Amino acid sequence: MEKYDVIVIGGGPGGLAAAYPLAAGGKRVLVVERDLWGGTCPNYGCDPKKMLYSAVQAKKRAARMTRAGLVGIPDINWPNLMAFKTSYTETVPTGTRAGLVDQRIAVVDGEAHFVDEQTIVVGEQSFWGADIIIATGLQPVLPNVPGSSLVQTSRDFLEMPQMPQKIAFIGAGYVGMELANIAAAAGAEVHIIMHGDRALRAFPAAAVTALETEMATGHVYFHKNVTLDAIEPLGNGVRLMAPDFTLDVQQVFAAMGRRPDDQLMLNRGRIRSTPQGILVNDHLQTSNPHVYAIGDVVAKTQPKLTPVAGYEGRYVAAQILGDTEPITYPAIPVTVYGALEVAQVGLSEAEAKAAPDYYTINTQDVTHWYTYNRTLEPHASVTIIKAKATDEVVGAVVVSSSAEDLINVLTVAINQHLTAEAVNAMIFAYPSEASDLSYLL
Amino acid sequence: MEKYDVIVIGGGPGGLAAAYPLAAGGKRVLVVERDLWGGTCPNYGCDPKKMLYSAVQAKKRAARMTRAGLVGIPDINWPNLMAFKTSYTETVPTGTRAGLVDQRIAVVDGEAHFVDEQTIVVGEQSFWGADIIIATGLQPVLPNVPGSSLVQTSRDFLEMPQMPQKIAFIGAGYVGMELANIAAAAGAEVHIIMHGDRALRAFPAAAVTALETEMATGHVYFHKNVTLDAIEPLGNGVRLMAPDFTLDVQQVFAAMGRRPDDQLMLNRGRIRSTPQGILVNDHLQTSNPHVYAIGDVVAKTQPKLTPVAGYEGRYVAAQILGDTEPITYPAIPVTVYGALEVAQVGLSEAEAKAAPDYYTINTQDVTHWYTYNRTLEPHASVTIIKAKATDEVVGAVVVSSSAEDLINVLTVAINQHLTAEAVNAMIFAYPSEASDLSYLL
Repeated sequence: MEKYDVIVIGGGPGGLAAAYPLAAGGKRVLVVERDLWGGTCPNYGCDPKKMLYSAVQAKKRAARMTRAGLVGIPDINWPNLMAFKTSYTETVPTGTRAGLVDQRIAVVDGEAHFVDEQTIVVGEQSFWGADIIIATGLQPVLPNVPGSSLVQTSRDFLEMPQMPQKIAFIGAGYVGMELANIAAAAGAEVHIIMHGDRALRAFPAAAVTALETEMATGHVYFHKNVTLDAIEPLGNGVRLMAPDFTLDVQQVFAAMGRRPDDQLMLNRGRIRSTPQGILVNDHLQTSNPHVYAIGDVVAKTQPKLTPVAGYEGRYVAAQILGDTEPITYPAIPVTVYGALEVAQVGLSEAEAKAAPDYYTINTQDVTHWYTYNRTLEPHASVTIIKAKATDEVVGAVVVSSSAEDLINVLTVAINQHLTAEAVNAMIFAYPSEASDLSYLL
Repeated sequence: MEKYDVIVIGGGPGGLAAAYPLAAGGKRVLVVERDLWGGTCPNYGCDPKKMLYSAVQAKKRAARMTRAGLVGIPDINWPNLMAFKTSYTETVPTGTRAGLVDQRIAVVDGEAHFVDEQTIVVGEQSFWGADIIIATGLQPVLPNVPGSSLVQTSRDFLEMPQMPQKIAFIGAGYVGMELANIAAAAGAEVHIIMHGDRALRAFPAAAVTALETEMATGHVYFHKNVTLDAIEPLGNGVRLMAPDFTLDVQQVFAAMGRRPDDQLMLNRGRIRSTPQGILVNDHLQTSNPHVYAIGDVVAKTQPKLTPVAGYEGRYVAAQILGDTEPITYPAIPVTVYGALEVAQVGLSEAEAKAAPDYYTINTQDVTHWYTYNRTLEPHASVTIIKAKATDEVVGAVVVSSSAEDLINVLTVAINQHLTAEAVNAMIFAYPSEASDLSYLL
């Protein structure tokens, strides 16, 4: 049986962020990956999604400016766009694996499961680790109805050779909203089937309504309070059925969230978990003190995002190398790249509303401000949440076609506990989203 | 003779930034404007320029993405783009003037000059001010050669009803580079006549070379070390002449920098100035202690930019209302919106090179990084300057099609004296320009 200082189960952003500093710190490290090296984000998650989104952004921006001097709206050629995506993704697994080997990190392909508290098996091989890090991420949830085998996932969408004329997404979380926007911009009629009446529940209702409104102008149809009870094959497509509801589409994709799967046999490792993920303490240690968990597989309140997994990976590596501080998180921005970008960071609007003695919430519709008018944004708004006692900026919500940029500036401001006065004393590129801040704080 | 607590000469961004807080602070304020209320920036400077640039950006981004799934490059219809610009600029003068009147600020139209240390004349009227603020900005320099009356200015360019097929700019400062990019994207063959061999002298040579190279791929021709000695009318155009050089174009524009004009009769106000502008102390007071100067009209080392004028206006208002601190400036980002955006903030590369014991300079070509590859950027680079003793980020240069966004994040980091470690402990929207920072610092 091979023995290692640290075994990392999962070669995605979290596991890699742990493996490299551990190896650099002198540890003998093994990384196990059962699927594509690099994990979800670069292979079939945020990175390829944002490459498709690049073309959508460019098309939409040009389309808006046809009211302001541009002539001709570009079309999206889906196979060409897919080829562009693939030009990036095709080198990720081999490049990632080679990068590890280059740093003398051992790698093994296959699915791991625990056999005892410090031993895992991959295929026929057993490996013992002084420490083990679980970084296996999440798998898409599929609907539990007859015909669910007809339902594809976001991964299938990101590899789809042709864009169908009519498709549906089950679920209105960020994956559903982002892929629906891409499909609609690429010419499909898109239907979103929602169990409830609220998309993107983590975001303020007004921001989500703005996004839904914008998507509805672009051939995205929302079907709210619809719980599918059957899916049937239908010629070249599928029929989606619920009480008083039938919809025929060519393809249907699940976007119902993601959940850990159970291949790890956690009970044999004495690792406690819930359906929401693996339970950890404030050192990211599981109920088995030899085993840590990081990234999306952890049951946690923080957003399940690639950079959070990376942050946790670096944290656990430092712990194994000798640090002892409990984990604390910086302000974490979350951005939905839809027909509008909806982004928030820091204290949420809901949290601030629950403590009106402590916080002010100031939402401004900035659609007609110079900054957003110059690119004919269909909708833009900025919400700033401040602590009454200190006038510090503690939270923000931004809705616009480029919300990512302003949310990044606000992320630094919130991490630095900047007051409105401190931000106003700065000079930004002018005119820009950030140079408006003095009117927003 | 009317008497005021404060007379502001010049109704542009600097003067307005002073007038409003002074009026709010109880002062009787008069603002004098000889031309368009609002001044250069919103009427014929940064704001309309960036509206034209919006269409150029959208066109270029779409054009790049035709190698990645888009089909069809939009054209620019110049009259429509001008109409879009005018839809914004046409309301600026009346809106600005009305805004002042609404706050009970007195306004007078006309050209002011001093008659003594506290008295100015506008037309037939005399006004006395306990304090006077000069915020008159700068005027374009025209070439001092025969035929210079054939040369137009950036203001004319921004009001040009049709885009000629072939035009020239004299000068390769930021105005020349920005307008040349717009003209070329709108279909013109563009020539830039340079007295020396160096565009944008305030920026690092490598960044400028990248910009020139990109502009040269888009029908912009640089003529270096050419000093025009005559300009002659030629049919519907002009002939530009220098030793061993002749160029015929339809229109020619001066972009040779800007200079204060001398209508103020500063000597009568006992106000000292040089050809570079009005001399001030570190309270922005001129040699006449009743008179302050702010904005571009000041002889100073700070970049002459709208937000700097606004900052100085707010500073002088606070001084007149009782503050006594000398002025200090935050880190000031400067962005050139050309065929690439070239932006810098904080300590310059030249300053850092001059003190190699104190600073590290790290330039990385990031063109092929995911972030820039996903929009097929033709060139992107990031330079980070750090203080060796503290590892604080003290300066940055960014070249990309969206350098403005990353430079705004870096501006906050530099103002906050953040170390590389502090920035790396933050989480940004992913993947974005800012989320690359951990690989750049």
